[in-house]
Amino acid sequence: MFQDTVSEQGAVIHMESLPDPKEVGAGNLLIYDEVLESVGAGALSGWLAGFPVRYPVQAGESLKDLAGFPRHVEKLLTLLAPLPASQLAVVALGGGSVGDFAGFFASVFKRGVSLMQIPSTWLAAIDSAHGGKNALNVGLMKNQIGTYCFAKRVYLSRAILALQPEERVREAFGELAKTAILDGGAWVKELIESPLTGGELLWRFLFDAVSVKGRVVAKDPFERLGVRQTLNLGHTIGHVLETVHALPHGLAVAQGLYFALNFSLERGLLPIAEHQHLLDFLRDRFALDDRVAALQKIPPPQFLSLLTQDKKRSTSTAVRFVFLRALGRPEVAEVSLSELLNEAIRQGYVPNS
Amino acid sequence: MFQDTVSEQGAVIHMESLPDPKEVGAGNLLIYDEVLESVGAGALSGWLAGFPVRYPVQAGESLKDLAGFPRHVEKLLTLLAPLPASQLAVVALGGGSVGDFAGFFASVFKRGVSLMQIPSTWLAAIDSAHGGKNALNVGLMKNQIGTYCFAKRVYLSRAILALQPEERVREAFGELAKTAILDGGAWVKELIESPLTGGELLWRFLFDAVSVKGRVVAKDPFERLGVRQTLNLGHTIGHVLETVHALPHGLAVAQGLYFALNFSLERGLLPIAEHQHLLDFLRDRFALDDRVAALQKIPPPQFLSLLTQDKKRSTSTAVRFVFLRALGRPEVAEVSLSELLNEAIRQGYVPNS
Repeated sequence: MFQDTVSEQGAVIHMESLPDPKEVGAGNLLIYDEVLESVGAGALSGWLAGFPVRYPVQAGESLKDLAGFPRHVEKLLTLLAPLPASQLAVVALGGGSVGDFAGFFASVFKRGVSLMQIPSTWLAAIDSAHGGKNALNVGLMKNQIGTYCFAKRVYLSRAILALQPEERVREAFGELAKTAILDGGAWVKELIESPLTGGELLWRFLFDAVSVKGRVVAKDPFERLGVRQTLNLGHTIGHVLETVHALPHGLAVAQGLYFALNFSLERGLLPIAEHQHLLDFLRDRFALDDRVAALQKIPPPQFLSLLTQDKKRSTSTAVRFVFLRALGRPEVAEVSLSELLNEAIRQGYVPNS
Repeated sequence: MFQDTVSEQGAVIHMESLPDPKEVGAGNLLIYDEVLESVGAGALSGWLAGFPVRYPVQAGESLKDLAGFPRHVEKLLTLLAPLPASQLAVVALGGGSVGDFAGFFASVFKRGVSLMQIPSTWLAAIDSAHGGKNALNVGLMKNQIGTYCFAKRVYLSRAILALQPEERVREAFGELAKTAILDGGAWVKELIESPLTGGELLWRFLFDAVSVKGRVVAKDPFERLGVRQTLNLGHTIGHVLETVHALPHGLAVAQGLYFALNFSLERGLLPIAEHQHLLDFLRDRFALDDRVAALQKIPPPQFLSLLTQDKKRSTSTAVRFVFLRALGRPEVAEVSLSELLNEAIRQGYVPNS
């Protein structure tokens, strides 16, 4: 059986400063987003030099293209030729695309070497660097090829994350809001009442959000039991909006949360008072507004074709959708494509004609 | 951690007839060697038609080239688009290269789908279809990219295997001899005394040999403990000979067994009587002669460069070599490249100058 197994997630290390290359493993292969050489007026350039075996990449979707992967592997093998593979680990330093590329490479290079993640974006720090999933695209079809490859260590370094512009913080709020709504633990009350804002708020609750994801993933590391699917809250429609409107992932997910909350209300799963409470939470705590009225409507054929590309789809005519019964009580149910289309029409994402 | 886990090998199914497509899963993706359409005057063509979702490939090293992989994936995604991935399995029908290609695809398509193997060559049936390893080449560097992906079921069908020419049987004898020497169990006594020959002999002891491999793999599925390395007996030099002299894999391994036995004697690990007994076993039971005198000598730089490409190399100046202390008693030890070179000179594989 393929990886029919218990996984082991590695440690998450929270630090104000830069991770010490000696501790990360200076002899390892650093695959990193080349913009980090110049960001913050070169604040990281001296630190980067602490890793002698470096492979800079241009981040973004083109890095995730499977068609370009063989050429990267050729260059990487040349770079690695003098080093014994048995002791090598791959260190991924960057946002989601770098983590995907480096994670996939680590998982297939000589049948798998260790992986470490140092996310450089808030979105990677709160989500994609954790949970062991990586994926490459095949042409326009996203995330068709990938593996599960759990990082041995994930370094969350405030010194790196703080180099991003403030707008990036708001994008990560989409995933923070999703995690808070999914979990509803004691930390969510603290989050609601916290006087912090922006990057301060995100840093304060980053570890809580990451722990929630870690607990969910541990129950269902290879997505066989459906437990892990709850992390997909807001993503079914989020992915469609991300593609059609070229929205940043976090903002697309935030909009997808509005869709999921409204759909849950419509289905009679979520009480109206709780629904209003959660809409207020998104607006008041994160300034994430429902922007459906401002989005151009999506033609039905495009909407359906993007939905059926979803890897989570359970059959060719239905998808597994994450509803909410209350704060902290997600519920996954199968929904036919036509039901989703009707709901998207009702909510104003797809034109009624 | 990457797959830091317990693996589960699937079932090995031994059958005289062709596997029933309904039982294998007629809706699954069949990736198969296209020569099987015409082999045995089309004996398999009706049976192949029982699998409606088919992807024929041209077997051989070019199929294992990573550079060609993205194009195959594009075609496969087009073929699979109408089918829901959650229920899909990949069935690999062919020899080693088809198993490698299909196994790798199964392990990375949508982060892994189930794999079944129907080996069509004796060599795949006795070795590569079992144990979950697959690999692709990067240019001239062999087996650099791959995963562990254990087949859920391996079908050993005599009806398919018997379609090969008799010469193929002798090639598979190399792996049968290796397994017998490694294990030394009660079945080896039966093997020595059996009146059967050729394909009859191979089929009779195929299941025993496969069981030995299964037991070794189960102790060390991801090659972390060194246990699985014992399966590499005869392969260190075998791989070099395979590349340099373009020998069939099984015959290269047989020659590698002579090298290992002689080296074990030279090191004082293997008593001289036992050494002679094992040489006789190779010659008398399998007609596998020591052909070193007939092989062109390998220049030292080429010999060393091929050795250091070996994935099993533990450091850049040493390899882990499988010696033999007695029938059924392998012993893995680290050997420096210069020691191996000297031994290859002593045995006449490399010129003394």
